[in-house]
Amino acid sequence: MLYLIGLGLSHETDITVRGLEVVKKCKRVYLEAYTSILMAADKSSLEEFYGREVILADRELVETGSDQILENAQNDDVAFLVVGDVFGATTHTDLVIRARELKIKVESIHNASVMNAVGACGLQLYNFGQAVSIVFFTENWRPDSFYHKIMENRKIGLHTLLLLDIKVKEHNYEQLLKGKFVYDPPRYMSVATCAQQLIEIEEKRKEQAYTENTPCVAVSRLGSPTQSFKAATLKELSEYDAGEPLHSIVMLGRQVHDLELDYLLEFCDDKENFKEIVRQDQEFFKPPPPVFKDEDEDDDE
Amino acid sequence: MLYLIGLGLSHETDITVRGLEVVKKCKRVYLEAYTSILMAADKSSLEEFYGREVILADRELVETGSDQILENAQNDDVAFLVVGDVFGATTHTDLVIRARELKIKVESIHNASVMNAVGACGLQLYNFGQAVSIVFFTENWRPDSFYHKIMENRKIGLHTLLLLDIKVKEHNYEQLLKGKFVYDPPRYMSVATCAQQLIEIEEKRKEQAYTENTPCVAVSRLGSPTQSFKAATLKELSEYDAGEPLHSIVMLGRQVHDLELDYLLEFCDDKENFKEIVRQDQEFFKPPPPVFKDEDEDDDE
Repeated sequence: MLYLIGLGLSHETDITVRGLEVVKKCKRVYLEAYTSILMAADKSSLEEFYGREVILADRELVETGSDQILENAQNDDVAFLVVGDVFGATTHTDLVIRARELKIKVESIHNASVMNAVGACGLQLYNFGQAVSIVFFTENWRPDSFYHKIMENRKIGLHTLLLLDIKVKEHNYEQLLKGKFVYDPPRYMSVATCAQQLIEIEEKRKEQAYTENTPCVAVSRLGSPTQSFKAATLKELSEYDAGEPLHSIVMLGRQVHDLELDYLLEFCDDKENFKEIVRQDQEFFKPPPPVFKDEDEDDDE
Repeated sequence: MLYLIGLGLSHETDITVRGLEVVKKCKRVYLEAYTSILMAADKSSLEEFYGREVILADRELVETGSDQILENAQNDDVAFLVVGDVFGATTHTDLVIRARELKIKVESIHNASVMNAVGACGLQLYNFGQAVSIVFFTENWRPDSFYHKIMENRKIGLHTLLLLDIKVKEHNYEQLLKGKFVYDPPRYMSVATCAQQLIEIEEKRKEQAYTENTPCVAVSRLGSPTQSFKAATLKELSEYDAGEPLHSIVMLGRQVHDLELDYLLEFCDDKENFKEIVRQDQEFFKPPPPVFKDEDEDDDE
């Protein structure tokens, strides 16, 4: 049996009781270690907590060595641990499809992920549109495919969750060209970097999918002991120090309910100002007012 | 301290290790028992597993008796258990806002909910638009506000998660009129009922937000030992017996990636037919093809 087990967001103890029971009984336990990280735990603290060995599974192993992970899983129990919930990345879906082909049974043990825990910022999950990924810009590669997705969400009034890039165990290309396998240190996109990239793209495209003054929520270390939220404009977030990773941003849509706004006000510097910013931003993509024809109109004059 | 603790989807043991530690130490533990249910556990099995008393919190208590729940939580630890994740319902947001007013600290311990675990059906979470709630139709009340939301999602190619109505501890109005407080037995909307209601609204509105032939996935008992998925048309689901509750439906959008489709094919009766259904449905809301002007065109004749 292949068990896919979500680890939740931060602590060793964020695993479910059922998940922990399975980890303890499995023959091999892999930890997927490149699409996200547990903020308050690492391989050695997990091994201590589980009382057993854990094998780090990097991108190479998961994407090209899945048969190694699945070896004899028709007979043995194998666990594949994923930070957050199980189906956060397409590579995990690939692994399940490969397991099926090999006639290996698969069971998922779910957990919290940023996709649902982001509700902690006070915005209602059913008011979110599609989530978008924001990748690190490089000198020559500044992709803006997120822009039309934010536009689509905001046109229909919905909030957008921005998932910020994580680079773990990436090859250093300069060294690679010299034939050496050297990894860059891990990088986690900050709220400020993300906001700067968004502003750059809006300045280039000028279609007003959003503006510098669009209200957002900076989400820092969601689910960890130092979790924090900051409600501010995109411009303000471009200069905001959100502290240690991991970060996300929610960009608000037009449909901000009173209850949502009440909750957000706790996270902003100037409540009256933030209310006004939200009100102004709601003018974007506002449906035109209904036209009521005055019956007497034609009779005038 | 007020702890909001997600219980996950099904088993007693779906609580996180950290959540369980907190439950054991709290002075009072409330179980929110009206917006959802744990499929493989009830109050008494939870009490046995936790080794302590659990107080059922029904709608009346949560919505009008929050001060009773929060009594002396400035000094005592109080836990409020929620099936799924913590911020699934607006009433829980209300409780946090009330706690803040009373200067009570609040901590959330997150868990899986249908909003992220639905990724188990093979559709990628970032291809979902806004989720919609489908309520039981009555003779005189057949609300269709979900219709334009599905339309909005499908116009931009996104999948829609349909959350099906749950009626727990609802007053029987006939008895209420006689001055008696009697509760109806619990009701959980089935996949078939939901699909029938959707078809009825499409027949009335005829705007083709979707059709009888739109591909969907029936999600039964997500996260439980008897979890199952069925990929079929809306019409087929209107006659489908999805078994015991809880049920959800995902209606597909135009953007179905190959990997998503591969995964879904495992859940349908006739793979070639389902592929063709998806292909046909993708014609709805398809952007017009780009126009390439033939340079020689004007020179013809």
